[in-house]
Amino acid sequence: MSKTERIILGIDPGTTIMGFGLIRVVGKRMEFMQLHELQLHKYADHYVKLKHIFERTVQLIETYHPDEIAIEAPFFGKNVQSMLKLGRAQGVAMAAGLSRQVPITEYSPKKIKMAITGNGNASKEQVAKMLQSILSIKELPKNLDSTDGLAAAVCHFYNDGKIATGKSYSGWGAFIKDNQDRIG
Amino acid sequence: MSKTERIILGIDPGTTIMGFGLIRVVGKRMEFMQLHELQLHKYADHYVKLKHIFERTVQLIETYHPDEIAIEAPFFGKNVQSMLKLGRAQGVAMAAGLSRQVPITEYSPKKIKMAITGNGNASKEQVAKMLQSILSIKELPKNLDSTDGLAAAVCHFYNDGKIATGKSYSGWGAFIKDNQDRIG
Repeated sequence: MSKTERIILGIDPGTTIMGFGLIRVVGKRMEFMQLHELQLHKYADHYVKLKHIFERTVQLIETYHPDEIAIEAPFFGKNVQSMLKLGRAQGVAMAAGLSRQVPITEYSPKKIKMAITGNGNASKEQVAKMLQSILSIKELPKNLDSTDGLAAAVCHFYNDGKIATGKSYSGWGAFIKDNQDRIG
Repeated sequence: MSKTERIILGIDPGTTIMGFGLIRVVGKRMEFMQLHELQLHKYADHYVKLKHIFERTVQLIETYHPDEIAIEAPFFGKNVQSMLKLGRAQGVAMAAGLSRQVPITEYSPKKIKMAITGNGNASKEQVAKMLQSILSIKELPKNLDSTDGLAAAVCHFYNDGKIATGKSYSGWGAFIKDNQDRIG
């Protein structure tokens, strides 16, 4: 038997803004918990940025005790420089999770967009609007980076559904349709 | 006044082998301490690799209490995939240092080779031989990845010399020549 309640921390790592979103999964139902963002452009020093990423991620883990971490991780980029920087930001956030024994799963941006909206090329705004609707979030932040973190968490929830049932769900709508009996 | 004795941990991060080298700096003199390597190819899972990198780096920091960390960090690579992986390995090692408040400096492979041998295109073997001579190391390991970590530590020591004197030293020979009075 799986734990009936668990918490998923979703992270969208970046070197200018890190987005974090937390959801609680009760049985087969999701509940919105928190959105956080970490502004990094104010720090000029690369190591200071990485230090803040590590510390904020550890702080969120120690405050909310997530059972799982989902990370948005692009595998393609414009150039090797930006990928190295992104890899470092991802690595530091991953180290925070690994140091606290929290399992990590990563999803490509396309997979996350597909899971939330049914369209792998959906805009940031479309993803945010759908998340607001799915999770009954009263007001979204102006800056949508934290919703990208939240989207990773929700994608992870759907992916669990897929693993459990052997079906691939393109979104919450499809999941509800097939699981009327499993939703509280 | 600077501390008269300090320890430098040099790291050569990689996703198949991580190399670590430790030196003690007493006044203006270097002493060889340790070489370590972490074999990662036996772990298939990417996160398990990253977890081992984090744990080993933390373990070395907690055992030897280095005052500074020097990392070999290539800024160019063949493709974005390999740079992302390398960035993650670097990020995880950096997170270990940052989490223990140890300042980090990174050096390009070319700069390290130049500092040790006076030739930015020196081979791994040439760098190892020079290190063996500089630090009076009785026997080198067969695998030279750990000496690359050591090379980063020694490069950092030379670079401190450069900062202190405002001169750029191409190697130990040049440093000795200009600093007869500063070497114990």
